[in-house]
Order: sequence, then structure tokens, then C-alpha cells
Amino acid sequence: MADRYQPLVRYFQKLSRIEHAITFLQWDHMVMMPPRGSEARSKALAELSATYHRRLVSDELGELLQEVEDKTDNPERIASIREMKKVYSRAVCLSSDLVEAKTIAGARCEYQWRQQRNDNDWDGFAGNFREVVKLCREEAQARFARNPDNFATPYDTLLDLHCTGDDSGFIQAVFTRLKRDLPGILEQVLERQRETKRPNLAGEYPVAQQQQLNKNLMLSLGFDFESGRLDVSAHPFSTGCRGDQRITTRYRENDFFDSLLATAHETGHASYENGLPRQYDGLPVGGARNLCLHESQSLLFEKQLLLTRPFLEFFLPVIHRCLPATSHLSAETLWLGATRVAPSLIRVEADEATYPFHVIIRFEIERDLINQQIEIDDIPELWDEKMRRYLGISTGSNFKDGCMQDMHWTDGSFGYFPSYTMGAINSAQFSAAIRLAHPDWQEQLAGGNLDFIRRWLLENIWSVGSTIESQEILQKATGQKTNPDFFLDHLKTRYLDCGY
Amino acid sequence: MADRYQPLVRYFQKLSRIEHAITFLQWDHMVMMPPRGSEARSKALAELSATYHRRLVSDELGELLQEVEDKTDNPERIASIREMKKVYSRAVCLSSDLVEAKTIAGARCEYQWRQQRNDNDWDGFAGNFREVVKLCREEAQARFARNPDNFATPYDTLLDLHCTGDDSGFIQAVFTRLKRDLPGILEQVLERQRETKRPNLAGEYPVAQQQQLNKNLMLSLGFDFESGRLDVSAHPFSTGCRGDQRITTRYRENDFFDSLLATAHETGHASYENGLPRQYDGLPVGGARNLCLHESQSLLFEKQLLLTRPFLEFFLPVIHRCLPATSHLSAETLWLGATRVAPSLIRVEADEATYPFHVIIRFEIERDLINQQIEIDDIPELWDEKMRRYLGISTGSNFKDGCMQDMHWTDGSFGYFPSYTMGAINSAQFSAAIRLAHPDWQEQLAGGNLDFIRRWLLENIWSVGSTIESQEILQKATGQKTNPDFFLDHLKTRYLDCGY
Ligand SMILES: [Zn+2]
Ligand SMILES: [Zn+2]
Repeated sequence: MADRYQPLVRYFQKLSRIEHAITFLQWDHMVMMPPRGSEARSKALAELSATYHRRLVSDELGELLQEVEDKTDNPERIASIREMKKVYSRAVCLSSDLVEAKTIAGARCEYQWRQQRNDNDWDGFAGNFREVVKLCREEAQARFARNPDNFATPYDTLLDLHCTGDDSGFIQAVFTRLKRDLPGILEQVLERQRETKRPNLAGEYPVAQQQQLNKNLMLSLGFDFESGRLDVSAHPFSTGCRGDQRITTRYRENDFFDSLLATAHETGHASYENGLPRQYDGLPVGGARNLCLHESQSLLFEKQLLLTRPFLEFFLPVIHRCLPATSHLSAETLWLGATRVAPSLIRVEADEATYPFHVIIRFEIERDLINQQIEIDDIPELWDEKMRRYLGISTGSNFKDGCMQDMHWTDGSFGYFPSYTMGAINSAQFSAAIRLAHPDWQEQLAGGNLDFIRRWLLENIWSVGSTIESQEILQKATGQKTNPDFFLDHLKTRYLDCGY
Repeated sequence: MADRYQPLVRYFQKLSRIEHAITFLQWDHMVMMPPRGSEARSKALAELSATYHRRLVSDELGELLQEVEDKTDNPERIASIREMKKVYSRAVCLSSDLVEAKTIAGARCEYQWRQQRNDNDWDGFAGNFREVVKLCREEAQARFARNPDNFATPYDTLLDLHCTGDDSGFIQAVFTRLKRDLPGILEQVLERQRETKRPNLAGEYPVAQQQQLNKNLMLSLGFDFESGRLDVSAHPFSTGCRGDQRITTRYRENDFFDSLLATAHETGHASYENGLPRQYDGLPVGGARNLCLHESQSLLFEKQLLLTRPFLEFFLPVIHRCLPATSHLSAETLWLGATRVAPSLIRVEADEATYPFHVIIRFEIERDLINQQIEIDDIPELWDEKMRRYLGISTGSNFKDGCMQDMHWTDGSFGYFPSYTMGAINSAQFSAAIRLAHPDWQEQLAGGNLDFIRRWLLENIWSVGSTIESQEILQKATGQKTNPDFFLDHLKTRYLDCGY
């Protein structure tokens, strides 16, 4: 009997080569391309995406998937076929008309948003956004109709694209705990920090020097420059493939620490990708599990490694060497400067203690919007009301620093936001497990030794790929599912007990 | 009646988008990619090339081309269809087995050549090279069999891929003139230069300073950084698409002029590409005509613009500003240093007066090799004999600086070499026409004004694309076909009369 699995493997490997092309052409677009290259690049990317989509939804693949024997007793193969079917069925349940309409509406809404946000023009934005929401509701309905048993609500089908495996009920339960316990902690932290002045880390830090510093940080965090690059872009991001992980950061002449944090963050994302199981290269089962885990890796590198006192002690001489203007700064000063907490309007500038509320607001609004519990016109008031309730500040009619501040919704990326806070919780939970297994973790970090951490992550998360579901990964690695207590404990230790 | 031309236009535009992806992924491979990215990249490029080839030789395209009415009285459309048919017929006349075998044999031969050349290992090289030549002869025979009326010899079919429109008989006639008249000129030049010492341009020139200098040169030559980039690679090259022309150069800490020449050269290539007719974007008729013209543009920028006394006078202050270590150098010293002539073994290091002989040797040998007049084992002796006859130096058994020095043959790129010297002649011929039309050209260059040159090139060459044949372009622009007299006159003026 012919093996019906191997043709599938070859099919997906070929698909992954088109994906490779799209990945690096997009990277080039963001990082290298001169402005006038944009017309030809957009057309090339559209052609490749269409080729990719056409091959993914082809009858040929559908038949291969139907014929394959998934009742084998080889668990690896069962997992691989399960993930293949997931990718295929996510793609076929949408008509190409809907996909195209969403692409066009999303691109227009995002493009005009840049100016509209600037102008605080909510009405103008709402005009375009209405079409995006309409199409995303259609998308959610179509996905829901195809798999009514798998999803609790239409919104869950969009959530599943980003937070695969963590449904809206589970996330709601986690967030409810945060809403209950975080305000009290936050109040104490603010009270506590009122006693001390924020240290001033500003200075003149030439970009070339910062570049050197950031590369050194990546080396210290275990990044391999034979398998990746560091470049500059307006918004830090990471992308690539095995052996070629590319991250970006941005530099400000008067602030070096922000860019260090961004670089540590993206190094975490890149480390996950480079640690994925080699034997499944090109197959869905070899991909990162979901964004809640992806973000847990980046936040672990950013908040649980770089931003600890022992690691900063270790890294301080490198900072002094690369940036002579920092010679008067101690590790403790850096730590104090980078761990200030203050409620504010803008999510991307929020500290780790207030960030969850920014996410919860978005989660609650987008869920109800997609599930047709609320309408677009309700958003500004809901936003203001939730901001006042959770963070004690009002946005009023300052839409540009309120409900218009993020890009995510403009092109219809609903279901993405929860991963930020799920990732923060997961990262605290993983760190707790690692520290429990390595009680000398502070000495290790102070000596610049992070191998034990990378090994733990490789074994428990990276090399697992998508062979099991996300909460199984949490369970196996930490003994329980995503549990906000770890995150709350982390905040208490760092901000109230002044530990690490 | 339905228009049968538009579907063809759309078909080729789609093909050009796959080409776009290949172009920029290859650029990235050469310029940006970390070493470990190479495995995934090679697979992605192979997949894209296969996709491109499959779509190009498809029955669908064959039928579209058969059905299209090319007896229209619209000359633009006639030209466009002619070029489409040329691209298609070049691709379909080879079996995919032959294409694949050639790719594999070429890759192996090129890869091992790097070490074999180092080891002066002719026998080892000949082993791999035999397979490459065998397959290229098959290729030439297959192309010849399909179009026996269009080509004089099998070699002409390979020549046609690079020097499209300039056949081996025509090139032979041009080269015969050079073989007759160049030796006498060369002898006089050497005699004349014996009187003077070569000025020493060596010094310490930091790469960052050189980078700034090279960018300034590109700006002076009319390069638009909104439509392109300058980067670094082991061997300078240029590639890209409309609006995104990317050139590379290389830097040596002790020599700045070589990298300037390379940058001017590649700026010429990029200017041609960016000047191609916009209305034919994505269509074969909108492409550069052939390499004899492409190389004429690069050599014109390198030898007829940068390397003239008036331009160097204009540019000297920029050199002094960017490279303080050059402050003692005058424009005349630079010019004298960069216009030294001396027969030598290595083509890529040859001056413009001896370069043609390096090309003639290769042309005569590769032609006879593909047409089965000689065999691989004859090459070393022929090389030595021709080097002695044309340049008065013997290679003997120094194969690595003799017949093993170039990469071109290793992967079967026969028919490429002649374009270097045809390009040099064309560039002298175009310059003569421009100078005749602008008798004040030296004052213009001394003022840094090159607009009149770019305008002439745009009108006469760049914007013509492939709408007419190469020698028609020469005829229209200069009143005659490629004529070596212009090149010989250029050498006499520059090296004997000590003009410009
Ligand atoms: Zn992230
Ligand atoms: Zn060239």
C-alpha cells in the first residue's frame, strides 16, 4: 500500500517555499526597500499570496487530506495530519471574494487611519472601519458555520487564528482574575513608588554605539549571528525561517534602554522560531504553537531576563563600554528607571503592571463587536468608561490616544490582542518553573549564564512545535494551565517586595 | 472580436512578478543573508524558478501566442509579440531534463572550481567541466535544430542569449579589426608610459568614509536613492526592477579609486534599467536589449564619465571632503594613476587597452569548443599560445591565472564574454555621438552637469527597450553599426594624445 502521508509532506514543504519568499520580500519591504520600489513589490507579493492560497485550497490537497490514514498509531503523524487539516480547513472555509474584499477594505482603512488618527477624526475612520467589521463578522460567521462544534462563538474562530487553543471562555476567566486582583496591587505599587523619584536615564547615545550594544545584548542572550540579523525599522519586529531569523529595533539618540528592551523582546521571538523542531521543517506541525506562547518567549527575554537586577549587573560593563555616556549609571539606577509604573493612555508605552488593562479593554470590545453585541458607534463611550474604571483615566473625545491608537483593528486582525497578556502570564509561569528548578538562577544570571534557561525553553516549548495544544504545553512544562497567579506574584515580588 | 493581445500582456506581467521575487531573493542571498539561511533559500529559489519555468512553457501560453494576430499594423504590438515569442521559444526548445542536468552539473563545477582554481588543479576541473560542456553542446544543438535558419552555428544560439542580435560572424569581424590595429596602439602607449612613473594612490581610507564618497558619486551621476540602494558584496553587481535598482561595490582600506570605478560602472547598469520604457513594464519588449548595450552603459559611466579629466576636476572637492587622507592628491594625479596600461594575466584587473584581448581569447576558444572544433584538452595550450600572441605573456602551466580564472564557463555561461568588448566599443561610439552633439561637453562635465548625457542615453537607448534590434539602436543613435574605430580613436586620444 502506497504511503499516503509522504505526498502531503512534499505538498506542504513546497507551500512553505512560497511562504519563505513572501516572508523575506516582506522583511525587505519593511527594512531595505527604497520608497519607489513599493508598486512592483506590492504586485509581486499579491501574486505570491494568490499562488500560495490557490495551492492551499486546491482540490489536489483536499483529496490528499481526505485519503490519508489518520487512524495510524504513530502519534507524531496524527499530530502532523491534524495540523495540516487545520491549516487547510481555515483556508477553504472562506470564499476568495471575501478574502479579497477584506484585503482591500483592510488596506484602505489602515492607510487612511494614519492620517485620521493624526487628525483625531473618529467619524472618518468609522466610515472605513464599518466595512472592515462587516467583512470580519462575515468571516467569523463563515468559519463558525463550518465548525459549529469547535467554537463557542463566532469571535472564537478569529481568536483561534492567533491564540489557537485558548478560547474566549478560558481567556475571559483568566482576565476576570486580573480584573479582581490587579487593581489592589497596582494601587500599592503606585503608593510605594510615590516615595522615590524616577531616575533620569536620558543622555546622548550615538546610534552606531547603540547598535553595537544591542548586538552584544543579543550575543549575551544566545542569539547566533550566523543564523540571523539585527536591523532597524520604524516598529521592532522579528521574522524569518530556520537559520535566518531577522529582528529589528529602533534607536532614539536620547534613550538607549527602550531599544535594548525591544531587542531582547524580539530576540525571544527569534529564539522560539529557531528552536522549532527541525524534523518538521515546512510542515504545520513544526510551526510555533500560538501567539500566547510566542509572546511569552519575547516577554520572558525582555522582562524576566534583561530586566532583572542580576542580569543588569552582569551586563553593565558592556553598556559602559559601548556607551561611554552611561558611565555614571549603576545597574540599580537602570533597574529603577525601567521599572516605573504609571497608568497612561497608550498601550505600547505602558509598563507591565498596567498593560493587562489595555488588553482587557480591547478584548472585551472586539469580542462583543464581532459577536454583534455592540456596534462601532458604541466604541468610544465604552473605551472611555473602561479606561476610567480600570486605569482611572478618561479618554473623552481624545480618540487618537483612545480607541484609534492601534493598527491591529484597521486591517481586521481581531483576536490578536489577548495574546499580549496571555503571553505575559505564561512568561511569568515559565520563569517560576525555571527558577524553581534552578534555585541558583540569580547567581547564574549575574554570571551571564543563560544556557539553563535556553535549554529549558528548548525542551519544553520550542522543540514541541505544534505537536500538542497550547494548554498541554503549559500543563507539561509547569504542571498547570495558564494561571494569572504567577503573573500577579511576579508583580508583587518585583514591585512590592523589590525582589529581582 | 476579442483582443487576443491583452491576455498575453497579463500573462507576462504575472510571470514578471515571479521574476521580481527571484531577483530580490537572490540579491538578499548575496548581500544580506546570514550563512545558515542558505539551505532554505536555495530550496525556495528552486521552487520559484520551477514555477516560473512551468508557467513559461505552458500549453496555455503556447496557445495564446499561436492565436495572437501579429499581422497588425501597430509596430509596437508587433515588436512586443516578437519578443514574447522569442522568450517562449528559447524556453520550450529545451527538455526539462536537460535544464535540470545543466543546473546540477554547473553548480557542482562552479562549487569545486573555487578550490580547484586555488590548487591550480586543471585535471580535476576538466573532469567536471567536461560534463558542463557536453550539456551546453546539447543545448546549443537543440536550440540550433529548432531554428536552423536563424543561426549560423550552434554557438550562435548561446551567444544570442546574451548578445541578442549580434551574431558570431559580426563579432568576429569587429574583433578582427581590433586584432589588426590594437597591437600597434598598445605598443605606442606602453612606450609612452615608460617615461612616467605610476603615481601612488595608496593610503588609509576608512570604509565608512568611502561609503559616503561612493554615495556622493552616485548622486553626481544622477542616481536616485528613492529608487535604489548601494550595498557591499564580494563582487560588485547590480540588479532590481523599476523604482528599486540595487547596486553593490566592495571596499579596500588602502585603495579608494577601484571601488569608485566599480560604483560608477554599476550606476551605469542601474541607470539603463531604470530608464527602460515604463509602458512595457513586465513585458519582454520592455527589457534591456542585450548585454553588449548593457555593458556599454556601465562602461560609459565608468570610463567615459568618471575617468575623464573634467569630471575628476569637478569631483575632486567631494573626494577631499569625504576622504581627508586624499588631500595631497590632484585630479591629474588620480587620472594618471587610473589610466596606466600594462599587459597582465588577469582579465578583471586589466586596463581598457588590453582588456579586449582577454575577451577575444575567450570568444575564440568558447566558440570553437561549442561548435566542436576543439576539445577541452586543447584549451590550456590554446590559451597560452593566444596570450603570447596577443599580449606577449605566457601562462604556461599557471592554469589558475590562465584558463581557470573566470567563473563564467563553470556553470555554462557561454556566449557572455564578447559582450564586454562589444560594450566597450559601443560606449566609445555613444560617447563620440554625444560629444559631437555637445561640443562643450568638457565644460559641462567640469561643472558637474551630466543631464545632457542622461537625456541622450534615455532617448536613444534606455527608453527604446527591446522594441528594435541592437544594431538598429546603434544605427539610429550613431548613424552606423558597432564600429571598433570609435574605441580605437578613444584609446589614441586618451593614451597617446593625452586628451580628456
Ligand atoms: Zn512580541
Ligand atoms: Zn558590467
